[in-house]
Amino acid sequence: MSSDPLVVFTPSGKRGHFPVGTPILTAARQLGVDLDSVCGGRGICSKCQITPSYGEFPKHGVTVRDGALSEWNAVEQRYKDKRGLIDGRRLGCQATVQGDVVIDVPPESQVHRQVVRKRAEARKITMNPSTRLFYVEVEEPDMHKPTGDMERLIAALAEQWQLTGVQTDLHILHQLQPVLRKGGWKVTVAVHLGDASHPPKIMHIWPGYYDGTVYGLAVDLGSTTIAAHLCDLHSGEVVASSGIMNPQIRFGEDLMSRVSYSMMNKGGDQEMTRAVREGMNALFTQIAAEAGIDKALIVDAVFVCNPVMHHLFLGIDPFELGQAPFALATSDALSLRAWELDLNIHPAARVYILPCIAGHVGADAAAVALSEAPDKSEDLVLVVDVGTNAEILLGNKDKVLACSSPTGPAFEGAQISSGQRAAPGAIERVEIDPVTKEPRFRVIGSEIWSDQEGFAEAIATTGITGICGSGIIEVVAEMRMAGILDASGLIGSAEQTGSPRCIQDGRTNAYLLWDGSADGGPTITVTNPDVRAIQMAKAALYSGARLLMDKLEVDKVDRVVLAGAFGAHISAKHAMVLGMIPDCPLDKVTSAGNAAGTGARIALLNTDARTEIEATVRAIEKIETAVERRFQEHFVNASAIPNSAEPFPELAKVLTLPKVSFNTGGGDDEGSGRRRRRRA
Amino acid sequence: MSSDPLVVFTPSGKRGHFPVGTPILTAARQLGVDLDSVCGGRGICSKCQITPSYGEFPKHGVTVRDGALSEWNAVEQRYKDKRGLIDGRRLGCQATVQGDVVIDVPPESQVHRQVVRKRAEARKITMNPSTRLFYVEVEEPDMHKPTGDMERLIAALAEQWQLTGVQTDLHILHQLQPVLRKGGWKVTVAVHLGDASHPPKIMHIWPGYYDGTVYGLAVDLGSTTIAAHLCDLHSGEVVASSGIMNPQIRFGEDLMSRVSYSMMNKGGDQEMTRAVREGMNALFTQIAAEAGIDKALIVDAVFVCNPVMHHLFLGIDPFELGQAPFALATSDALSLRAWELDLNIHPAARVYILPCIAGHVGADAAAVALSEAPDKSEDLVLVVDVGTNAEILLGNKDKVLACSSPTGPAFEGAQISSGQRAAPGAIERVEIDPVTKEPRFRVIGSEIWSDQEGFAEAIATTGITGICGSGIIEVVAEMRMAGILDASGLIGSAEQTGSPRCIQDGRTNAYLLWDGSADGGPTITVTNPDVRAIQMAKAALYSGARLLMDKLEVDKVDRVVLAGAFGAHISAKHAMVLGMIPDCPLDKVTSAGNAAGTGARIALLNTDARTEIEATVRAIEKIETAVERRFQEHFVNASAIPNSAEPFPELAKVLTLPKVSFNTGGGDDEGSGRRRRRRA
Repeated sequence: MSSDPLVVFTPSGKRGHFPVGTPILTAARQLGVDLDSVCGGRGICSKCQITPSYGEFPKHGVTVRDGALSEWNAVEQRYKDKRGLIDGRRLGCQATVQGDVVIDVPPESQVHRQVVRKRAEARKITMNPSTRLFYVEVEEPDMHKPTGDMERLIAALAEQWQLTGVQTDLHILHQLQPVLRKGGWKVTVAVHLGDASHPPKIMHIWPGYYDGTVYGLAVDLGSTTIAAHLCDLHSGEVVASSGIMNPQIRFGEDLMSRVSYSMMNKGGDQEMTRAVREGMNALFTQIAAEAGIDKALIVDAVFVCNPVMHHLFLGIDPFELGQAPFALATSDALSLRAWELDLNIHPAARVYILPCIAGHVGADAAAVALSEAPDKSEDLVLVVDVGTNAEILLGNKDKVLACSSPTGPAFEGAQISSGQRAAPGAIERVEIDPVTKEPRFRVIGSEIWSDQEGFAEAIATTGITGICGSGIIEVVAEMRMAGILDASGLIGSAEQTGSPRCIQDGRTNAYLLWDGSADGGPTITVTNPDVRAIQMAKAALYSGARLLMDKLEVDKVDRVVLAGAFGAHISAKHAMVLGMIPDCPLDKVTSAGNAAGTGARIALLNTDARTEIEATVRAIEKIETAVERRFQEHFVNASAIPNSAEPFPELAKVLTLPKVSFNTGGGDDEGSGRRRRRRA
Repeated sequence: MSSDPLVVFTPSGKRGHFPVGTPILTAARQLGVDLDSVCGGRGICSKCQITPSYGEFPKHGVTVRDGALSEWNAVEQRYKDKRGLIDGRRLGCQATVQGDVVIDVPPESQVHRQVVRKRAEARKITMNPSTRLFYVEVEEPDMHKPTGDMERLIAALAEQWQLTGVQTDLHILHQLQPVLRKGGWKVTVAVHLGDASHPPKIMHIWPGYYDGTVYGLAVDLGSTTIAAHLCDLHSGEVVASSGIMNPQIRFGEDLMSRVSYSMMNKGGDQEMTRAVREGMNALFTQIAAEAGIDKALIVDAVFVCNPVMHHLFLGIDPFELGQAPFALATSDALSLRAWELDLNIHPAARVYILPCIAGHVGADAAAVALSEAPDKSEDLVLVVDVGTNAEILLGNKDKVLACSSPTGPAFEGAQISSGQRAAPGAIERVEIDPVTKEPRFRVIGSEIWSDQEGFAEAIATTGITGICGSGIIEVVAEMRMAGILDASGLIGSAEQTGSPRCIQDGRTNAYLLWDGSADGGPTITVTNPDVRAIQMAKAALYSGARLLMDKLEVDKVDRVVLAGAFGAHISAKHAMVLGMIPDCPLDKVTSAGNAAGTGARIALLNTDARTEIEATVRAIEKIETAVERRFQEHFVNASAIPNSAEPFPELAKVLTLPKVSFNTGGGDDEGSGRRRRRRA
């Protein structure tokens, strides 16, 4: 047994004996303890702060006495006097071992610290960013050993940081000589650590010690909106978030209309590429301004998007994605540079685009898979990312299946008579009293329900302008629960329902949700065609999920995750009343928020996650709904509310849907009604 | 022993037994015989042509009977009918082994064929270009196995050509889908095979079989001129050569004046960077037009240049090169892309810049080392690249030393009273009769000597305008040989020399070479300041060489190679009379022409040569003349013609220099004269 003092690190529990006088940073490195340092032990950066603990530690079998660490030396004292140190903290590179000691490494001193995620069930993000800062001291030039300044810098990185094969671009060479001399041959460099196919590369250089950080962007490029998070690549913190409308909207609301635009207009794809890149640059300028940082400090960016957005962003004509066999130009993850995509951040910033799963299941779905990790789930999880196209993942740690289903834009309020985007003034929440069949609702911009005091004042500025996506789902589900709508999707008449709000609308009926005519505002109704649009959309979503269940030969799932900004606003109950998702206990339906965006942020902050998701995507089995015969059958059944063939036993535990039927002409609806009853 | 037929390949001598029916190309590949193929054995490209030999081959122990190869099949016959084949040739991929056979692989069917060099002593260039063409058949997309078109192309390259890790840039992705479909899933790709730090990359893609080639540029970027060779990367042939003046000349004639320009003018370095890149692009447009090719087919380029040109071309301020310790921003070889240097060829074309040896010994010297290979020489060779700065290499296979010596522009006709650039009308050759002391000469643009019939007519259009660099060296050497000039560099008076051509010129004398005043032309004299300028230049050159000899502790060299376009025009005798180069047998002094340009071409055509010269440069020992005390001593001795301290025994075997002395004032010249006499 060594007579050298014992050093125990917490929380890792790593321990070892070290000679008296060994700096704590050195001991940590030798044991592989995760202790940060940018200056390489020169007492400049203070990233290696640690907290010694004193007293008895029976758990570690050690007693730590006063004097277990060295006295404060001049460097450490100078740092404390100038910059301050939290009480009890020491600089790991200056404090040396004098006796047995227990050393705590606080989270902020760990390179691979964990980033907090709000949701309890979500995996933590472990920091492992692409780019790190290194302070180095470079040998001065010597006429008798003529090597270049760059070569001596690279040698210093190898020697002082064990970074080998580091390369650089011309922009660094352009500033290298003056910066080295200004810093007195001491510089800080930001090094992109490279990946399987790219060597490490110097991205930035500063004279002396650079007391700052570098940034990365996690970008969710949607058909409708582009959302970005600007992250500190050292702390992992989101320093600013921002979003804009996708400027491609002027070429078509949904994906297929954009593909058509490109087919019908020569150079249309290039127009759309320019538009999205310009939008992206506007967004980046905005987000950098918001955070008050120089855009050149953005050295890494991760993008997720669906295949059509993916191709258009890359400047590839999406023509082939518009027709079978939906061939992607490229499906693998891509590592590019910002300049290749005309992005005005650091010109050599790396751009990582997650892999596409299939022609209809894009990098956004891969990002959802990274965030929600169905491939790591013990129980069988269904993850649906609800948007214009729904991407669906089903599986557990044994196997994951994926498909896409063309839900259309109804869930986003499009193709709905009073539909609108989620914006102030839009009805987002609805309840209908099952007895009086009277509605109450809330509009975006106010927390007050329409039947509460102060509602009129609260909405005075926005007015009531329409129904947004989550609102239309709620109102249709509430109509069904209140007996205004039957299982086949027909709205009853005033006579059949006993509610004067059911008004005739051509050959069908509509439900009057709000009559604003007295104030010169809109009259908002839910028409039978609106219900049909929702039926088609939810049937497409359900059928995709059901098809994957068939493939796995299961009849139920253990839990459902609703992803997408939209998913965050759908209540589990309403979704299941509509039969959007398979039956499952309501408390097992959770919302993941913008899981695609979160996946992008994970890939940005942890480069290991990139390798991981690439492997996951390769292992995911892709199902093409368009060529599956059973999809049609599921679709027909799923057109009923909730479903004409599937029982919803978990839903039945919570509520009973009124057995109404408003079909007066017989036929299909009657038929499907029968089937459902037979099975129940 | 195998009972399968024996196949013997010539010239390699490789041999093996193969089952009846084995295609010759397959046999060649299994034996590692160098047999070309672009189409991968599909009978399309005809690059694998071979010649079977019939009869007795006692040397190989084999008898080849008729029928040793298969009959012509349909594919082979179709090729012959359509494109023709040289008599006796077969397609190696179609003809199969039927019996023992001897197969000759003609040079044009070898990938690693050798490129002929004109000089007997020069090493051959073995073809091993960066970029090759590959024909592949790509799997069609399948909805059930959703991979991208690019991923299937990359898989095809791996499967059909064993090329792994191939990557691509966006510009290929942009055209990939239509090209694959146009070619019916058969395409030809040009793949840059990569290097230590870059993966292989697809540079071009054509539908179907592409019956063309790709090109590379070997560029010698000199202070005065930029010269480029456009080479076919398959055959190695130079398809066009062209040159332009370096547009940076307007900022300063020589290197140091350009460094000064950058020091004195803010942004001056950037102006010069723009100028040289614009010049480069003009040159590339010109050379591509000359060859009648699309510039986008230029996929590789190699540049050699001195350190100041190197830094300015890269956009680096050459400030540090203007002062001790002459620190290079970067010394290693560089692999860049054309776009990084604003070069208008293939945007992703690779640019390779040879390593610099030291702050004064650039990539051009490295290229000379590659071309002349002193590191492979059995005997001790001195290689001097004569220009504004002379780069000097001395060594053999055991060790090579390098230095640079500031000769100044006198050797290029600058700072000479009647000096001019080598252009029509310039005197380039001079002889002086040692008895009559009358000169005769030749001017650029005519082969007729001035004392021959027809001279006046021959020079009628150009006139006689001045003396170029080689002319001034010749005339000074001839003056010394004719006794018009003494060892100290003084021109004798008419009285002292007995020649009325020696005319008084202030306090010294001048030699009248040509009196054009009768025709209104210039009067061309060689003045004593002209001789001084040549003395300074040649003393610098000699002292550098002598310093390297000191370092190697030798008193003589076995041979001398004069490199540089200028070196090609200097006669060995005149150079040695002047004492420009160390004494050695005259027939051991050879000219290598533009060795730097040749080195660039070698590095272009053979990527192995790049690795080789990088290792060579690392091993070369650099001597900085500026800090060597002995340099000054050598310089003083070498100011005399040929030298006041060194004997020139080999020169003495060929001619005796007149022992004249025109010093009338005593002092230094007398002194050095005495020293020389004591030693002789």
